[in-house]
Amino acid sequence: MEVYLPMRLLEERILRDGKVRPGGILKVDGFLNHQMDVELFASMAKAWHEAFADDNVTKILTIEASGIGLACIAAQEFGCPVLFAKKSKTKNIDGSVYTTRVESYTHGNIYDVIVAKEYLLSADRVLLIDDFLANGAALEGLCDLVRQAGATLVGAGIAVEKAFQPGGERLRAKGLRIESLARVASMSDDSLTFVR
Amino acid sequence: MEVYLPMRLLEERILRDGKVRPGGILKVDGFLNHQMDVELFASMAKAWHEAFADDNVTKILTIEASGIGLACIAAQEFGCPVLFAKKSKTKNIDGSVYTTRVESYTHGNIYDVIVAKEYLLSADRVLLIDDFLANGAALEGLCDLVRQAGATLVGAGIAVEKAFQPGGERLRAKGLRIESLARVASMSDDSLTFVR
Repeated sequence: MEVYLPMRLLEERILRDGKVRPGGILKVDGFLNHQMDVELFASMAKAWHEAFADDNVTKILTIEASGIGLACIAAQEFGCPVLFAKKSKTKNIDGSVYTTRVESYTHGNIYDVIVAKEYLLSADRVLLIDDFLANGAALEGLCDLVRQAGATLVGAGIAVEKAFQPGGERLRAKGLRIESLARVASMSDDSLTFVR
Repeated sequence: MEVYLPMRLLEERILRDGKVRPGGILKVDGFLNHQMDVELFASMAKAWHEAFADDNVTKILTIEASGIGLACIAAQEFGCPVLFAKKSKTKNIDGSVYTTRVESYTHGNIYDVIVAKEYLLSADRVLLIDDFLANGAALEGLCDLVRQAGATLVGAGIAVEKAFQPGGERLRAKGLRIESLARVASMSDDSLTFVR
């Protein structure tokens, strides 16, 4: 089941302070992922909590670095801990971590992300949180970590979804419940529209 | 002026859940820097706010990745935004960022960290937040970014200081006010003591 969350506050902020850069980059680093407006984050956390309030979330999983702030503020609403997947350069030699591979389209590289097995349990009911959803590679990696742990995947709370890129559609088709607070339908140098 | 903050809650948590690993590693990733206990973070934020309440903090500066969660929860107490310094592999070609070089003793490498000039202003009164203080390289890098911006450096809130390593002493000698919530005096496989 998918519920659309009208999070006008975030849309208005994107329209006011976001900038579209060549190459389809939406720059929101004044309030979302470099400088971070924690008051806005608190409103976003409330919206996610409204959507997933009945899902008995026991853990929020995100990926470093820019998802961590959102995840921590959201965790206060849900009353649960945060776990962040780490980008790793070292091999998992002692079997103490779950590993998955993520391909970054933005940076044109592939990297491993890990979480310690002891913090992601089969009894956990996991909500994923991230700042962006575009091609969906990072989110898919997080889904894979949850699957490896045998935990229950409740869904994903996303700040900004680029709805014109394929990640959201592909992951929803696989059954993932995604609650994006702003869904960008199109963007160009002088205009930006949202999915209504 | 330095005020010692007795933050017994964090000390007790370190004694309960922390693990000392070979090579002087204090592993606190069950609650501080992999899995994150945001309820504990809220208590820590209150302690920092108590220490810096009269300093009119306008911005919290931290460094990715593990400082971000602490910084965001602290920012809610101070009612200000967070800015996190990013590890960068690309050269600053357009002059839009402040850059400083940080030497990691833990990982044995040197990296550049950057912040966008537009988010760190000369009018800012900056509080630094980080999870660990040992040799002080990361904290010194953040101080340098504040200096480059011509902003006012109010001080630093640290979760765990390894008081037997030289960073804290060196930076305090330079005039930096540092409020560490737990100061480890010594640690070995079977004991850990705090500075009193």
